[in-house]
Amino acid sequence: MISFANDYSEGAAPEIIKAIQAENALQNSGYGTDAHCKNAENIIQKLCDNSEADVHFLVGGTQVNLISLAAFLRPYQAAISAESGHIAVHEAGSIEATGHKVCTVAGENGKLTPKAIKSVITAHPDEHMVMPKLVYISNSTEIGTVYTKAELCALRECCDENGLYLYMDGARLATALVSDGADCTLADIAKYCDAFYIGGTKNGALMGEALVITNKILQKDFRYMMKQNGALTAKSWLMGMQFEVLFEGGLYFSLAENANKMAGQIKTAFTEQGYKLFTHSVTNQVFVILPKTVSSELSKTFIFEDWENIDDENKVVRFVCSWATPQTNIDKLVETIKNLKK
Amino acid sequence: MISFANDYSEGAAPEIIKAIQAENALQNSGYGTDAHCKNAENIIQKLCDNSEADVHFLVGGTQVNLISLAAFLRPYQAAISAESGHIAVHEAGSIEATGHKVCTVAGENGKLTPKAIKSVITAHPDEHMVMPKLVYISNSTEIGTVYTKAELCALRECCDENGLYLYMDGARLATALVSDGADCTLADIAKYCDAFYIGGTKNGALMGEALVITNKILQKDFRYMMKQNGALTAKSWLMGMQFEVLFEGGLYFSLAENANKMAGQIKTAFTEQGYKLFTHSVTNQVFVILPKTVSSELSKTFIFEDWENIDDENKVVRFVCSWATPQTNIDKLVETIKNLKK
Amino acid sequence: MISFANDYSEGAAPEIIKAIQAENALQNSGYGTDAHCKNAENIIQKLCDNSEADVHFLVGGTQVNLISLAAFLRPYQAAISAESGHIAVHEAGSIEATGHKVCTVAGENGKLTPKAIKSVITAHPDEHMVMPKLVYISNSTEIGTVYTKAELCALRECCDENGLYLYMDGARLATALVSDGADCTLADIAKYCDAFYIGGTKNGALMGEALVITNKILQKDFRYMMKQNGALTAKSWLMGMQFEVLFEGGLYFSLAENANKMAGQIKTAFTEQGYKLFTHSVTNQVFVILPKTVSSELSKTFIFEDWENIDDENKVVRFVCSWATPQTNIDKLVETIKNLKK
Amino acid sequence: MISFANDYSEGAAPEIIKAIQAENALQNSGYGTDAHCKNAENIIQKLCDNSEADVHFLVGGTQVNLISLAAFLRPYQAAISAESGHIAVHEAGSIEATGHKVCTVAGENGKLTPKAIKSVITAHPDEHMVMPKLVYISNSTEIGTVYTKAELCALRECCDENGLYLYMDGARLATALVSDGADCTLADIAKYCDAFYIGGTKNGALMGEALVITNKILQKDFRYMMKQNGALTAKSWLMGMQFEVLFEGGLYFSLAENANKMAGQIKTAFTEQGYKLFTHSVTNQVFVILPKTVSSELSKTFIFEDWENIDDENKVVRFVCSWATPQTNIDKLVETIKNLKK
Repeated sequence: MISFANDYSEGAAPEIIKAIQAENALQNSGYGTDAHCKNAENIIQKLCDNSEADVHFLVGGTQVNLISLAAFLRPYQAAISAESGHIAVHEAGSIEATGHKVCTVAGENGKLTPKAIKSVITAHPDEHMVMPKLVYISNSTEIGTVYTKAELCALRECCDENGLYLYMDGARLATALVSDGADCTLADIAKYCDAFYIGGTKNGALMGEALVITNKILQKDFRYMMKQNGALTAKSWLMGMQFEVLFEGGLYFSLAENANKMAGQIKTAFTEQGYKLFTHSVTNQVFVILPKTVSSELSKTFIFEDWENIDDENKVVRFVCSWATPQTNIDKLVETIKNLKK
Repeated sequence: MISFANDYSEGAAPEIIKAIQAENALQNSGYGTDAHCKNAENIIQKLCDNSEADVHFLVGGTQVNLISLAAFLRPYQAAISAESGHIAVHEAGSIEATGHKVCTVAGENGKLTPKAIKSVITAHPDEHMVMPKLVYISNSTEIGTVYTKAELCALRECCDENGLYLYMDGARLATALVSDGADCTLADIAKYCDAFYIGGTKNGALMGEALVITNKILQKDFRYMMKQNGALTAKSWLMGMQFEVLFEGGLYFSLAENANKMAGQIKTAFTEQGYKLFTHSVTNQVFVILPKTVSSELSKTFIFEDWENIDDENKVVRFVCSWATPQTNIDKLVETIKNLKK
Repeated sequence: MISFANDYSEGAAPEIIKAIQAENALQNSGYGTDAHCKNAENIIQKLCDNSEADVHFLVGGTQVNLISLAAFLRPYQAAISAESGHIAVHEAGSIEATGHKVCTVAGENGKLTPKAIKSVITAHPDEHMVMPKLVYISNSTEIGTVYTKAELCALRECCDENGLYLYMDGARLATALVSDGADCTLADIAKYCDAFYIGGTKNGALMGEALVITNKILQKDFRYMMKQNGALTAKSWLMGMQFEVLFEGGLYFSLAENANKMAGQIKTAFTEQGYKLFTHSVTNQVFVILPKTVSSELSKTFIFEDWENIDDENKVVRFVCSWATPQTNIDKLVETIKNLKK
Repeated sequence: MISFANDYSEGAAPEIIKAIQAENALQNSGYGTDAHCKNAENIIQKLCDNSEADVHFLVGGTQVNLISLAAFLRPYQAAISAESGHIAVHEAGSIEATGHKVCTVAGENGKLTPKAIKSVITAHPDEHMVMPKLVYISNSTEIGTVYTKAELCALRECCDENGLYLYMDGARLATALVSDGADCTLADIAKYCDAFYIGGTKNGALMGEALVITNKILQKDFRYMMKQNGALTAKSWLMGMQFEVLFEGGLYFSLAENANKMAGQIKTAFTEQGYKLFTHSVTNQVFVILPKTVSSELSKTFIFEDWENIDDENKVVRFVCSWATPQTNIDKLVETIKNLKK
């Protein structure tokens, strides 16, 4: 069986394993006070063109999201998210568990718009309701789409007009930055967002996400929040070092290019056979509408995820590629798609 | 100006003021351990035909809702509510502040259905999402509609099949019980719900709601939850005594009859003039679609609430009657409606 | 049986009952937006010599404490309290339920000192521990003692030096302000504290506490916090009006004078008979060490509270007087004390 | 500089690095559903002599503690801990952040006793206070002491008598199990505790702790709690695999033996020179009282932690050894101690 189930099935890029091995016997100070974390912070600050950004290393995306929102919001304040937002659906109520409501609104292609945000603001006029205060977006989104620079700029303006923070979930940020037609750099992201994280777990790291906080007000005392939520890990140097490696020689970007390229081939194979795509993904996830008989046939050889039921005959399935997906796996899948009986 | 803004503008039924005055100088033990609370509990148990129900007296509806749901749910469990549910919109995120998500779903006439509940259950299959565990309904609903006995019975069956609690917000329960065509008694409510509250604040009490917990598992340690949330009041006897008075000689029901009757006259006046109602309210709230010019004209003499914008020319407004609304106020409003220029 | 169990056994001062009766049929706007709350706020601002203080009316003390601390503290910040502090012991973990630790330290006569506060600060140097941020004091204290103006001034200085808020629980503030040797006015309290509340429930109100927030940073969005925690009551005018009455003609102070005076007579009676007091109370609570045989004898006629066991023969008991305690009850108790067999 | 600052400065045992390398390119399913986690669970169940224990793998100790207590306690319930307990002091209020109070009581040699536990129970009789429900102990303790089997048995009996859960923080459990005179096995721990964790981070793992839940009632839905708190990591197989390696051929125990043995040599060196130990540690931490001049001299070559000030001339310092501490480092320290001028 060949798995296209997700982008975190393998370990880490070989460069990272090598670095861990080399460092393993040395002593590092604990809880992010080591030289690797410091150096990785410097590297990320440079990429973000912001020498005053704070960078923290955490283990996973849900952890970053919940601690950030808990840190940034006062008890009665809420987040605004697309209905498909990861925090709104797939994090087991972690934001609510920290006391905050997630106000959802329909997105366009999985993306939030100023118009959608304003509709939420208008619906929450006074203290009998929560006060929306933070806009949560994912990039690339949960359905593989990507924000353009113009879209981010418009969101920033909308946030400024309404006194809102803009927060980006970057679990798959790498795939967005290197997607076809992408016009955003890390520096752009850092300019438009109050905080965002650079995902490692899904792009070549053993584990780890780098949270970047550019808004100085939000930087205050963040390590307290990490410690209180069990996210200040003893051996944080492990994560700092991985980001050093990922950003050395552009590894972070070339890994994501592989993921997108492999997914692109799957997309082409399906569309060439006349199957319709379910979302306009330009990154490493492919959502395609398949007859259930076809899906069933493919599942004999390949692992992929059921996404949504369409009707009695058809459903949406998801194929995910990663930094580690080899061309040979794609070739087998493409070949199989071409030979499908209709 | 005559106000139809809400049903909590006046103090209490005169019978209650008289009782407070009579009791005022006597000494009662604190925190709900007094004879009035005990007696009121007995009275309510009898009306509910359930001698083992627990009854607690709290000050307000938001307080009852948040403490109940915090007590009944484990941290990862969520409530299911209609989109228009009070806890979903008008309680400032109080449920989320206790750590729990409110999963919303479209209602029918402001009411939840088994089908809607099942759709929420289906959408939450595993631990990457919250676990829906409690169904929240309001009766009468936020838009004035009422659950029939058959509807409650169907909800109960749905809850049993899916391991869910059924909780009823009874802020306006009295108006539901005495509404035209109502086929439910307090005993029916007690039979179908795991917990519900009998609203006092909006039906003749100075303040106070009586929470009834019939599910024995949910009864455990509830006073701890009240104390921890600042709801175990020193002079709880004040609330116990008010419910003694309210249920003596059926006062609770006759007060609600006045509220419904007065509202019915407003409804008739508007429809006779050709205005359309916005909801199928059968209780003390009237939602009517008015030309903005008409609304503006009425607002010179009467206070009522803007509910929702329809278009450039029309909007929905709400008129609320209460136990205290005098026929003379209604007469003035009806007269004014009849004389409106179209 | 005559009860000296506490100071909240009776209803309200007759002046208050009269005012409620007079207002009962009138319509007031909801949730603290009415004229009575506004007027009571003005009256309290004047007494506090601070026209920019915010005043909010809530139902009970635990409620005020938990909402205030939840509003004032960020998630990782903690309160400092004497070990005997009400929030540390008798509020069922309400502060922890909002997410905050209460750091306790031994008090002197139930009072916190700058030295004690500094010891807590020193013990919490970094993000592996909570960050103490708010000093909680009660006045009069849980054991009846009172802060002098010099003591409050010293606490204020200590707070300023350490970036701490000073919060006073005034459940029994009235008894402190009129105690023998008291040198503080409401204006002094308002000057030294960032926030405090003026207790009504234990000093003649049917129910209600007036929270005064002088620190402008802490004023922001407080009504959201009240609503979210179920403390923004529909008929808030009831509480506003009670404080209007309490501060008219100094009623609030004369009521407390009665409580202190009655307690003083009990104190004298016991000490004259050679019994030792357990605390240096100068207010309405008397803590006395009695042989268990004596306590037992007294409990045949009087209700009072067991406070603490001393040894096999002796224990501490508490007698509480209130605004409502009549001289006749005291006379009976004093007579009984005088006739006790040793 | 040679560091004795803590036991998490190095990476992982070479066996673990090798295993990660070998597995790195393979695909594992996510979130703990992989074969390594399953196998590690089986291994641990066997060591615990309990085939129905649930085993979960989490990243760090604070995370395990906070999620476990949040899962096991109802909102008004509290933990009982020694004053020196890690959750009471060094976890930034993480337990309180989940809503629960930690009731502290003086320990004996860093250990809780039935008598201490009963004193807490007695002091919390009703709903005006929290309800103590879980006993938190660390083994080895924060000061290096170890519970005997008889002591654990007595705690278990005390817990049973009082309806309490017994929870053990095993961050340094390995050092306890192999300490001189230790009479407990993992099976004993599993028998006496409702839940405990086997620490990996401080005993040879790159990161990871194995939580064992033996009480069936506490097992329910635990993965929901992990997900909600950001602790259900995508690549959980990394942790499962490390515990497979650690328990193969007794590596877990031999690593801890090195830590204890090295610390023992430091202890001996100090005592032979006449310095007094501050605690009765029998594990990998050495707490010694040193003249400040001596501490200062040692700190030129060695890194160790200031623990507590004694007086103007003396202080307590802590030396920690680990699985990775080489004999050569100890030799240098011992030599230096021997040559200290008094």
